[in-house]
Amino acid sequence: MNIVEALKEIVEPERVTANPTMLAQHSKDESYHTPKLPDAVIFPKTTEEVSRILKWANENRVPVVPFGIGSGLEGQVIPQQGGISLSFQMMNKIVEVRPQDFLVRVQPGVTRMQLNKELKKYGLFFSVDPGADATIGGMAATNASGTTAVRYGIMRDQVRDMEVVLADGTMIRTGSMAAKSSSGYHLNGLFVGSEGTLGVFTEITLRLYGIPEMSVTARASFPTVGDAVRTACAIMGAAIPVARMELVDGQSVRQVNMYKGTDYPECATLFFEFHGNEAGLKHDLAFARELAEENGCGGFVFETDSLRQAALWEARHHLAYAFLHGYPGKKAITTDVCLPLSELAGAIEHARGLLEKTGMVGGIVGHVGDGNFHSLLMIDPDQPEEMQQAEAVNAEIVRYALSRGGTCTGEHGVGLGKAKYQRMEHGNALDVMYAVKRALDPNNILNPGKIFVF
Amino acid sequence: MNIVEALKEIVEPERVTANPTMLAQHSKDESYHTPKLPDAVIFPKTTEEVSRILKWANENRVPVVPFGIGSGLEGQVIPQQGGISLSFQMMNKIVEVRPQDFLVRVQPGVTRMQLNKELKKYGLFFSVDPGADATIGGMAATNASGTTAVRYGIMRDQVRDMEVVLADGTMIRTGSMAAKSSSGYHLNGLFVGSEGTLGVFTEITLRLYGIPEMSVTARASFPTVGDAVRTACAIMGAAIPVARMELVDGQSVRQVNMYKGTDYPECATLFFEFHGNEAGLKHDLAFARELAEENGCGGFVFETDSLRQAALWEARHHLAYAFLHGYPGKKAITTDVCLPLSELAGAIEHARGLLEKTGMVGGIVGHVGDGNFHSLLMIDPDQPEEMQQAEAVNAEIVRYALSRGGTCTGEHGVGLGKAKYQRMEHGNALDVMYAVKRALDPNNILNPGKIFVF
Repeated sequence: MNIVEALKEIVEPERVTANPTMLAQHSKDESYHTPKLPDAVIFPKTTEEVSRILKWANENRVPVVPFGIGSGLEGQVIPQQGGISLSFQMMNKIVEVRPQDFLVRVQPGVTRMQLNKELKKYGLFFSVDPGADATIGGMAATNASGTTAVRYGIMRDQVRDMEVVLADGTMIRTGSMAAKSSSGYHLNGLFVGSEGTLGVFTEITLRLYGIPEMSVTARASFPTVGDAVRTACAIMGAAIPVARMELVDGQSVRQVNMYKGTDYPECATLFFEFHGNEAGLKHDLAFARELAEENGCGGFVFETDSLRQAALWEARHHLAYAFLHGYPGKKAITTDVCLPLSELAGAIEHARGLLEKTGMVGGIVGHVGDGNFHSLLMIDPDQPEEMQQAEAVNAEIVRYALSRGGTCTGEHGVGLGKAKYQRMEHGNALDVMYAVKRALDPNNILNPGKIFVF
Repeated sequence: MNIVEALKEIVEPERVTANPTMLAQHSKDESYHTPKLPDAVIFPKTTEEVSRILKWANENRVPVVPFGIGSGLEGQVIPQQGGISLSFQMMNKIVEVRPQDFLVRVQPGVTRMQLNKELKKYGLFFSVDPGADATIGGMAATNASGTTAVRYGIMRDQVRDMEVVLADGTMIRTGSMAAKSSSGYHLNGLFVGSEGTLGVFTEITLRLYGIPEMSVTARASFPTVGDAVRTACAIMGAAIPVARMELVDGQSVRQVNMYKGTDYPECATLFFEFHGNEAGLKHDLAFARELAEENGCGGFVFETDSLRQAALWEARHHLAYAFLHGYPGKKAITTDVCLPLSELAGAIEHARGLLEKTGMVGGIVGHVGDGNFHSLLMIDPDQPEEMQQAEAVNAEIVRYALSRGGTCTGEHGVGLGKAKYQRMEHGNALDVMYAVKRALDPNNILNPGKIFVF
C-alpha cells in the first residue's frame, strides 16, 4: 500500500508529500526525544478532508499523528510508528471573534501570538502563555499552561467547545458556547490533554479575557529558594490575585548574567505580574512586598512602564536560551512535576540536591503559584551516560513528587517521556483511561505509542 | 433473589433496610419528578463496603443509585429501575484539612454548610453555593454551581481528586493534590457531572479559597430585564471581579413582597457581592454603579455590614420559598438553560414572553454573569394539563437556547428531566458519551435510566 498515493486521492496531490526535508521537519519537536520519520505529511484545509483522511487511515490501519508547529517538549508529535503526519499549517484561520461573549473560534493551526495580535483590536486577550508560540491545537492536545495559569487557569479551563474528528472519521462537537454546563459527560475535558490519542481537533472555541486596566511587574530577591517559595505560598494564602509569579534560582540567574552581560543579583528570585485597577494594584503590590520582606527579601523592585516591565522580566524570559547558548550542542531535558504548595519548597530543595550530587548543569524555574517547577538538565543526547544520568534524575524527581501527592507532568504532557510513569501515578485509573481509548479508537491508529506503553 | 438479605451479608444488618418510610425517603428529590421506591437502602461506612456492594450488584445485575441528601432538581437519585439506594449519610466525615495547600479531603456525605463551618476555623471557605445544603458527593455528581460560579468557578473546577468505586468494585483515584496536571486523561472532569452513571464517589479532594479580606453587597433596580442583563454584560466586559451577580425579575420581587410583607421596588433587580481588599472594592463598586446607571439603573444601594448585607439580599434568598408558599400544593419545574452572554437578554425576554402567552405563574432568576437563568414554573403535578404546559414551555426554552449556542442545563444536570434533550444538544457526541458509559459499566447497573434514554 502506498500511503502517499492513497492520500493524493483525498486532497490535491500538492498537499501530500514524502519529501525528505518535510518528513524530517515532521519527525521531531523541541525535546530531546529521538526523531522518527512519518511515511507522509498531509496538509488538510477542511474538517471534511480530515474526516476522509481518518476514515481511510482507520480502514487501512495507518497511524495518524496531528502536528501543529512542533514546539512540544515530550515528543507528542513524533510519529513513533510511522504513518501520516497531519499538519495543520493550512488550517490556521481565526474563524469568528465574539467580543461580547468573550469567545473566539479558531482552527487548530492558529498560533498563540497570531491570535493575541488579532484580539488586541477588541481589547481582549487569550490568557495561556506556555512561552513558545505554540498552536492552539497543540496547546489543547497537551493541556498547556505556563506563567499565567495561577490567575487565569490552564488550557482546559479555556476550551468551551471543540470540533473533533474521531478515528473512524465521525465529526462531533464536545461542548457549546455556554460558560458552564451540566449536560452529559465533560467531553471538552476528556479531549483536552488527550495528545491526539482520542480524536483530531479541527476547530476550537476559547474563552477570552479583557485586557486589564493596568499591569505592574515586580522582582524580588531572596537569600534561599526556600524563602522565595515560602513567599509565594504566603501570597497565595493571602489571596493576592497575582497574574504571574515565577521562581528562578540563583544558578539560573548566573547563567543569564553570563549570557546577557547583565548583573542581576545571583540568588533565588521571584518575578511577579499583577493585573487590575490602579487602587487595587497598589494595595496588592504593597501587600506582596510586605510578605516578601517578612520572608527575607533583600531587594524588591517594580515597574509600571511596559518597556521597563519587559526589562525587569528579562532574566526570566532568557532563561532557556541562556542555558542552550551557554552549552552549545547540548539539549535540555526539562522535568515538569507539580505538587501541592506545602510540598513545593522541599521538592525544589530535593531537585537542587540531586543536581549538585550528580554534578549536572541545570537551572530550576517554577510556576510557583501552581506548585509546578522545571529543572533544565543540559545533556548531549549522543552521550548515553549523560542521557542515562538525566533520566535517573528525572525519575527521582517524579518519584518524589508522586510520593507527596503530586503529578509527573504539570503542563508538558505525557508523550514519550512520561509514559513510563503513568502506572505509578494513576494505578488502576490507567486502565479506565485505556478503556476509554479502546472504546474510541479500537484500531489504535490515533498517535499510537503515546501515553500508554503497556 | 432477596436484595436485602444479600446486602446484610455485606454490612451489619442494621445498616440495610426495606422499611417503607426509608424507601419513600430515598424515592425522590426536591423535583417534580415522579418518585420510585428502591428495593433496599444501604448505609455504607467505608470505601471497602461500597466496593463489596458494587461487586455484588454487578454480579447480580442489580441497579445501584447513590443518594446524598435528596436536594437534586432533576431526579438523579430516583431509583428509576428499583434496586439499591446507596445512602452516604454515614460517610460524612471531613477527612483532612490541608490549609497550606488550600485543600480538603471529605467523604461524599459531608454537606456544604457542615464543611464551611469547619473551614471557617482556618480562614478558608469552599466556594460553590447552589442554594440548598447539598452534599459534596451530590454536588460533584451533578457538577453543581450557583451564585458564586461567576468568580470562583463551578464544582468541576474545585475537584482535584476523587476516590471512585467502579461498577465491578474496583477502586481508583481520578487525580492528585497538584493544582494542575497534564498526566493522562482528565478523569476528574469525566466523573464530575456523571450523575452516578460511571462510578460511585467515596472521597473527594476539593480546592479551597481564603475568606476575602472584605465583602460588599449591592442591589440595583432597572426599568427592564434587558437593562439589567446589559449591565451584567458590561460588568463582565469591564472584568470587574464580581463574586456574585444575580438577576431577579419584577414578578419575582412582587412575589417576595407578598410573602415577606416587604416593599422592594417591583422591577428587574441585580444583586451583587464583591470580594477583595478595601481600596480595590471601592473602585469596583463605583465602576459597577457607573455601568448600572449608564444602563438606566434607578436605585443602587450597597452594604458592608454583614447583617445588613443579608437583609439586602433577602429578596433573592427568599425567592423559591415565596413562590412555593404563595402557591400551596404546587411544585416548581425549574428551567436551567445557559447561553453565551450576548444571547442572554433575548433568551430571558423569550422566556418571559412564553410565561405571559401561556398565562403560567412563574419567576425568572439568573446567574447572569455565567449566562445561566431559571424560570420557576409553578405547577400541580397531579394536573396533567399543567404538567404538559410546563413541559412544553421548558422544551421551547431549551430549543431556543440550543439554537443559539447554549446548553439545556447549566447546573442542575440531566437526570430524568433533560435526558430527552441530550441528542438535540450533543448530536453524535452522545454516542461517544455512551461508548464511555458502556466501557465502564457494561452491565448498566450504575443509575440506569439517567442521561441516556435511547
